[in-house]
Amino acid sequence: MKKAVFLIYSNDRKGLLSGISTFFYQKGFNILHCQQYTDNCENRYFMRVCLDITDMPVTRKNLEDSFAVFASTLNLQFSVHYSDRPQRVAILVSRASHCLYDLLAHAQDEKDLLCEIPLIISNHPVLEDVAAKFRVPFYCFPVGKDKPAQEQPVIELLHRHHIDLVVLARYMQILSGEFIREFPSRIINIHHAFLPAFQGRNPYERAWERGVKMIGATAHYATAVLDEGPIIEQDVERITHEAEPADLKQIGKDIERRVLTRAVRAHLEHRIILSGRRTIVFSK
Amino acid sequence: MKKAVFLIYSNDRKGLLSGISTFFYQKGFNILHCQQYTDNCENRYFMRVCLDITDMPVTRKNLEDSFAVFASTLNLQFSVHYSDRPQRVAILVSRASHCLYDLLAHAQDEKDLLCEIPLIISNHPVLEDVAAKFRVPFYCFPVGKDKPAQEQPVIELLHRHHIDLVVLARYMQILSGEFIREFPSRIINIHHAFLPAFQGRNPYERAWERGVKMIGATAHYATAVLDEGPIIEQDVERITHEAEPADLKQIGKDIERRVLTRAVRAHLEHRIILSGRRTIVFSK
Amino acid sequence: MKKAVFLIYSNDRKGLLSGISTFFYQKGFNILHCQQYTDNCENRYFMRVCLDITDMPVTRKNLEDSFAVFASTLNLQFSVHYSDRPQRVAILVSRASHCLYDLLAHAQDEKDLLCEIPLIISNHPVLEDVAAKFRVPFYCFPVGKDKPAQEQPVIELLHRHHIDLVVLARYMQILSGEFIREFPSRIINIHHAFLPAFQGRNPYERAWERGVKMIGATAHYATAVLDEGPIIEQDVERITHEAEPADLKQIGKDIERRVLTRAVRAHLEHRIILSGRRTIVFSK
Amino acid sequence: MKKAVFLIYSNDRKGLLSGISTFFYQKGFNILHCQQYTDNCENRYFMRVCLDITDMPVTRKNLEDSFAVFASTLNLQFSVHYSDRPQRVAILVSRASHCLYDLLAHAQDEKDLLCEIPLIISNHPVLEDVAAKFRVPFYCFPVGKDKPAQEQPVIELLHRHHIDLVVLARYMQILSGEFIREFPSRIINIHHAFLPAFQGRNPYERAWERGVKMIGATAHYATAVLDEGPIIEQDVERITHEAEPADLKQIGKDIERRVLTRAVRAHLEHRIILSGRRTIVFSK
Repeated sequence: MKKAVFLIYSNDRKGLLSGISTFFYQKGFNILHCQQYTDNCENRYFMRVCLDITDMPVTRKNLEDSFAVFASTLNLQFSVHYSDRPQRVAILVSRASHCLYDLLAHAQDEKDLLCEIPLIISNHPVLEDVAAKFRVPFYCFPVGKDKPAQEQPVIELLHRHHIDLVVLARYMQILSGEFIREFPSRIINIHHAFLPAFQGRNPYERAWERGVKMIGATAHYATAVLDEGPIIEQDVERITHEAEPADLKQIGKDIERRVLTRAVRAHLEHRIILSGRRTIVFSK
Repeated sequence: MKKAVFLIYSNDRKGLLSGISTFFYQKGFNILHCQQYTDNCENRYFMRVCLDITDMPVTRKNLEDSFAVFASTLNLQFSVHYSDRPQRVAILVSRASHCLYDLLAHAQDEKDLLCEIPLIISNHPVLEDVAAKFRVPFYCFPVGKDKPAQEQPVIELLHRHHIDLVVLARYMQILSGEFIREFPSRIINIHHAFLPAFQGRNPYERAWERGVKMIGATAHYATAVLDEGPIIEQDVERITHEAEPADLKQIGKDIERRVLTRAVRAHLEHRIILSGRRTIVFSK
Repeated sequence: MKKAVFLIYSNDRKGLLSGISTFFYQKGFNILHCQQYTDNCENRYFMRVCLDITDMPVTRKNLEDSFAVFASTLNLQFSVHYSDRPQRVAILVSRASHCLYDLLAHAQDEKDLLCEIPLIISNHPVLEDVAAKFRVPFYCFPVGKDKPAQEQPVIELLHRHHIDLVVLARYMQILSGEFIREFPSRIINIHHAFLPAFQGRNPYERAWERGVKMIGATAHYATAVLDEGPIIEQDVERITHEAEPADLKQIGKDIERRVLTRAVRAHLEHRIILSGRRTIVFSK
Repeated sequence: MKKAVFLIYSNDRKGLLSGISTFFYQKGFNILHCQQYTDNCENRYFMRVCLDITDMPVTRKNLEDSFAVFASTLNLQFSVHYSDRPQRVAILVSRASHCLYDLLAHAQDEKDLLCEIPLIISNHPVLEDVAAKFRVPFYCFPVGKDKPAQEQPVIELLHRHHIDLVVLARYMQILSGEFIREFPSRIINIHHAFLPAFQGRNPYERAWERGVKMIGATAHYATAVLDEGPIIEQDVERITHEAEPADLKQIGKDIERRVLTRAVRAHLEHRIILSGRRTIVFSK
């Protein structure tokens, strides 16, 4: 089945649900899923519509153009996405393999991450072997004193491969504002702590020192301010006083991998709409 | 703010969302929340619409009548509920106080269970003191050899008080089919196990014998077959080999109380639609 | 069965387990539970020994004196506690009843918090009715401009009633350093956030603004620095973008109540040893 | 650091902790961790002692022989395990790759499963490519009408490779009693349900039909009765009515993989003692 997803948002007013659902009904589409959310605190409206377009009565161009006309009358903002046009994902890593394995296995073997992964980029050569196992080209750009000089070829490589989404899968470098601005709301990072707790370096050591009784991980869109971007997904595990920092790292790896994969899946399935510093993450 | 909730269900077909949302829009209502769900396995459609009726442009009778006419054209089934008509809840208990306290404190003090509790019924006198603390009339009907003779006055009492919902808050008696048929889909029971595991008697002892590593509780609508009714809510806690049956009971009490209160809240907020043996539980 | 609990801690060295367990064996005691923990990061040893003292071969004074002599040879620190000497607990509250109900119901009805609660203290009169339900004396000390003047009679009242443990059950006042020093490691506070995230005021509003996907609560010993004391227990619940600040407060109440009750239970059962800013919380 | 682990169990009586810990102290060993558990329901005692044997004062043979003499005086049963003798693990699979990837990545890349994996066995050829990625020999034994004929060469292969532990990583065949008796308490299976709920076939379909609100997975030792063996580890995830059987399978894969890996790790670290149908799983 071919699907189209419309992500729609605007200020809230009466009649939005009626108007939008009637638009698709009159065009002859079958709505597979439709979820909406009204943010009463900020008076904003958000909607995700998933259409069956297997036997589409109009061309895609025609659908998009006519929805654009309709949307302008209601002052809606929107984006359209098609299930037969998989996104192109670049994975950036350093030395830790656990998130990389999970993303690759889900994308290539389990096939529940619908995307193409044309390249893996690292600042260390150590994970080249993992990339080779999955037959994904691996590029290594060691970080020296001149950080912009390291970032520039990475950015060019990402653009040359028409990358839609950049996944920082335990890439232990802080990206510059320039890098982030090249991929606005299209860089997902995994932070190995339950944000906003333990932003920055060495969260597991600091969690041990603080004596917390649960540890967590957070997937978020990268923004210019470190670990401050909109949160997509979080999860935690209970720990006891017995867990030393090395134990926290091991327990944490499992949390990181599932939190990052869930966040990437939500993004690839076009289930996320940004609302300032918050994310609307539809379940279907 | 006064609210009306429509719970709507039918076989799925094109145009339902457009048709229903347009009906309310044209009547001049503001939709506060609207969630829908299409069960693609059984081709069924479910919808919950919450309207602001503070300044209602028509009478309630008028609204209901006109929606009934509209619904018949689309073959919809529905029910309507108003926030200013709180439901009347009877709580049935035996000897354990933990669920009773939680329901009463939420209803009377925290005021996040919107209902009236005109009576508490038990087969033991032991919880009369708890009922008195909350100034709720307490009726005791000991269970003897003649079960129907015990049930009949309970049923009459419930009807005389116009009870909308019966909550079995660790009422350790099995209700007869006659009793249950008097209150179809309006009896909520808490079972102290993660159903369908450990149906029936002594679930904590059996959980210990089986050596499970988590225990749980299940709130469900009571049906004629014990512990087989549609599940509303479940939760679990992790345990270790150290937990003996008495520990399981203590840990379990905390699970039971929160699971039952959540289920009762979902029912009172008209967020549940039954679908055969399954429940659709809308989040808002 | 009467029990004695020894909480023992020292620098780690060879032979501690052998020495201590042999001491109790030679005195003729039956060890019901024994847990020990070696903190390899800080080279510290912690042990909890629970003895059956129903038919005690020596007097308590004799046992304590002879263990003190033994402990000094190994440079052990320790404390002894008896199950037939329940601790005296004061609960401090403001306006929110949910934690108060849970503590009182567990202590008086479910009897799984072994303690006496001789008084409840508040800065508002609103919860007097809850205290009356459980027949616990209620004292109200409104907070004016002169904070020490409000605190002084509270401290005196606590001492006059020989209070062992002070529980801040959503007491919305910051205690002075003087107050806290009066009850070192004997004040347990519940903070309505997953510390160290959202220390200080209005954590639910700030959690909403930050867009977290889980909220939590933290029970900790109060120290002179706000929300920085040793953590005893934490728990979380998953939330979605639909949860507004008012929803977070409601969901959070349930987390707060169970986290605080668990922490108080661990303290009352003498299962906690402090280690700097961390807590060792034995499971049995 | 080289380590030895003693797993000890017996009927409970006074003096066991003192006796055993003194034995190791007098031999000059440093106890790294020691946990014990008394099952008061069945009057059984269990102990795990982890020793530093880096500079061992006696030979292993000498240690084992002298402990055996000591154990016979107290009627203890025990087994000894050494950290420098990694266990040999065979993984049996069918078509699903998710558990296989996780085990291999943990064993080879993350190095937190201390074992050798000399072979992977399947009844389908489809996962040969995954085995090749990790350079592990792959053997395919298709299942025909003659089941014993298929099992016999598998058993021989396992013995020829001196396999200590057989992991059924979604191996969709029921092993015969003969097979299981060859590897008593040394076969770990992952069942894709929260046992004892949904034993047997198609648990996700049956979970959907029953309308449960959480799904789970269970790792257990295989015994002659299907899905009835001693449980090692379980975990769950919350689901809603939106999750169709295909969604349950996807959500469940993530639970299965982490539950199986945790159970295998506990076994490999010699943290499990069997007690009838229950498992004692020490945390360290």
